[in-house]
Amino acid sequence: MEINDFIDNLSEWLKGTGPDANIIITSRIRLARNTREFFFPERMDSAQKDRFFERIKKINESTNELKSYGFIDMEGTSYTDRQFLCERHLISRDMLDFSHQNGLLLRRDEVCSIMLCEEDHLRIQAVKSGFCLHKTWEIVEKIEDILAGQLDFAFTPELGYLTSCPTNVGTGLRASCMLHLPGLIMTKKINKILELVAKLSFTTRGFFGEGTQAIGNFFQVSNQVTLGASEIEILNNLSGIIKQIKTRELEAREYMVSKYRVSLEDKIWRALASIKSARIISSEETLSHLSLLRLGIDLGIIRNLDKQLINHLFIMIQPAHLQKVYNKELPHKKRDFVRAKLLREKLKNISL
Amino acid sequence: MEINDFIDNLSEWLKGTGPDANIIITSRIRLARNTREFFFPERMDSAQKDRFFERIKKINESTNELKSYGFIDMEGTSYTDRQFLCERHLISRDMLDFSHQNGLLLRRDEVCSIMLCEEDHLRIQAVKSGFCLHKTWEIVEKIEDILAGQLDFAFTPELGYLTSCPTNVGTGLRASCMLHLPGLIMTKKINKILELVAKLSFTTRGFFGEGTQAIGNFFQVSNQVTLGASEIEILNNLSGIIKQIKTRELEAREYMVSKYRVSLEDKIWRALASIKSARIISSEETLSHLSLLRLGIDLGIIRNLDKQLINHLFIMIQPAHLQKVYNKELPHKKRDFVRAKLLREKLKNISL
Repeated sequence: MEINDFIDNLSEWLKGTGPDANIIITSRIRLARNTREFFFPERMDSAQKDRFFERIKKINESTNELKSYGFIDMEGTSYTDRQFLCERHLISRDMLDFSHQNGLLLRRDEVCSIMLCEEDHLRIQAVKSGFCLHKTWEIVEKIEDILAGQLDFAFTPELGYLTSCPTNVGTGLRASCMLHLPGLIMTKKINKILELVAKLSFTTRGFFGEGTQAIGNFFQVSNQVTLGASEIEILNNLSGIIKQIKTRELEAREYMVSKYRVSLEDKIWRALASIKSARIISSEETLSHLSLLRLGIDLGIIRNLDKQLINHLFIMIQPAHLQKVYNKELPHKKRDFVRAKLLREKLKNISL
Repeated sequence: MEINDFIDNLSEWLKGTGPDANIIITSRIRLARNTREFFFPERMDSAQKDRFFERIKKINESTNELKSYGFIDMEGTSYTDRQFLCERHLISRDMLDFSHQNGLLLRRDEVCSIMLCEEDHLRIQAVKSGFCLHKTWEIVEKIEDILAGQLDFAFTPELGYLTSCPTNVGTGLRASCMLHLPGLIMTKKINKILELVAKLSFTTRGFFGEGTQAIGNFFQVSNQVTLGASEIEILNNLSGIIKQIKTRELEAREYMVSKYRVSLEDKIWRALASIKSARIISSEETLSHLSLLRLGIDLGIIRNLDKQLINHLFIMIQPAHLQKVYNKELPHKKRDFVRAKLLREKLKNISL
């Protein structure tokens, strides 16, 4: 599998066709699993990792459901390649920084992937467009089932599944939704919501996951607790809170439209104008404009602008993606130039 | 003469056809004169002012060179009307605020006008596009000559012409140039220039004259001293300093283009985009964008955009002009909305 094959790929979640995708960009499930057959990754030596990879490759080739998955050995990848995968939310930031003998199994449509020898032996992940945590869970569960039949998972009846980090012990499950909340930001209600989320033992993160800031009005909300509740309980709890946030966001948008329509339109059209005109633009600025364009499309203020294009641009304007598209290393400043060029090109037919 | 006749008028100076008009927007001369036949305006009572106005009206009607001038009695004007004249630089801010029995004689093309009973009996003014102080002086001098033949000007051999404020005594002359200096602002050299100007006893003011701030990169430089030098000496001195500033501004622009072309283009195109897209826009913001558009045209970065249109917009987007165009009182917020609408309309055919 070639990483370059994915450059023009529109991941399933970027199509924005899932339920409530105007607010809930993605539903994402990640399951941590380890096998008793090997030390945990932290303690594995090179030879063990080789053996583990061989084992996984065999499963990959011999299992119907996994045959179509491509195998990427991170050892041979450049930083830009890994950054590219990270920008697509396919590998973690840890894996971006430490590529020493870990790998990725990846389904063509990017809905499902398995990180190998990251913190745990296996990190099975699925991501789908919109508000569909349970459906996404089913995808992960199916893969987990298949792998459980071939690998002896580390498990104790008292603790459940064992993981490298104690915060994942139990179900090994992390479920999250990426939310687009411009309404709550504009009405300054976001902090109250985030406090509530924290009180209920859920965590909020930025666009690029753990340790990243909220940019472009995007927030990831995920479960904190993996122990003492079943997978379905965790999903139900998260779904409940997401539903509440969705309602509040819709109310906030309605309020903005009814009370501040003109100033909202002003913000949205200016965002489009900036993107159509800039000669130099950072990714942070771009994300905040794209966020407003999304909102503009959702509210029917901007017409004739394809939301898939906007979704795609969220990823395309990231540093590694730009470098892949232009097929060369670009220093920071040059990227801001190339990003602006790409945006002008992509939006040239959209009139102000 | 109806004030409304001027709404669509493009004052001569807005045509931008004068020498060096890319940097020196206007050359302006103002001459203060008083007649011995009346008390100075501060001490005139209503009956005296009536008599003075009658006297001026007669001169207006009977003198060939002044026949085409319209007479506007400020007493009957609304604040919006006076603000309209002030925005066109035809009356002073004092006359805007205190309209009690003063007036204006105005030439159709707005090159020449005479304020009546402002601080002095007569304030003869001429303004022309570009760097042409001496030519502008000739216009004022001619009118002064004509009036001197009919009114007995207050004059003493020791002091020269007497004026209400001692700062105008002597020649009664104020000469000024309005400069567009985006290059010196961007290269942060403007403060040094302004210090030099002050050291040489010249004064700097904003776009709307005395007591106003520099906005949109516009500066008015004028003589401070009116006593102890002849009119021509004053003009020569001012011309000398303007020439120097012009050279420095050209150097600054050249430097910006050679060193920071892309970021300059970025600023200029974004300015156009903001103006083409905004739904709410203040006059301050508009002026700073228009300033960049002027620069963009001067540098050949923006083509197909008529500089006269930009010049005209500098005036059209002012509060009173907007209210005249839309023929109603507009509160502050509504003006920002209407201004944005006007700008979008006027620039709709200019592509990014």
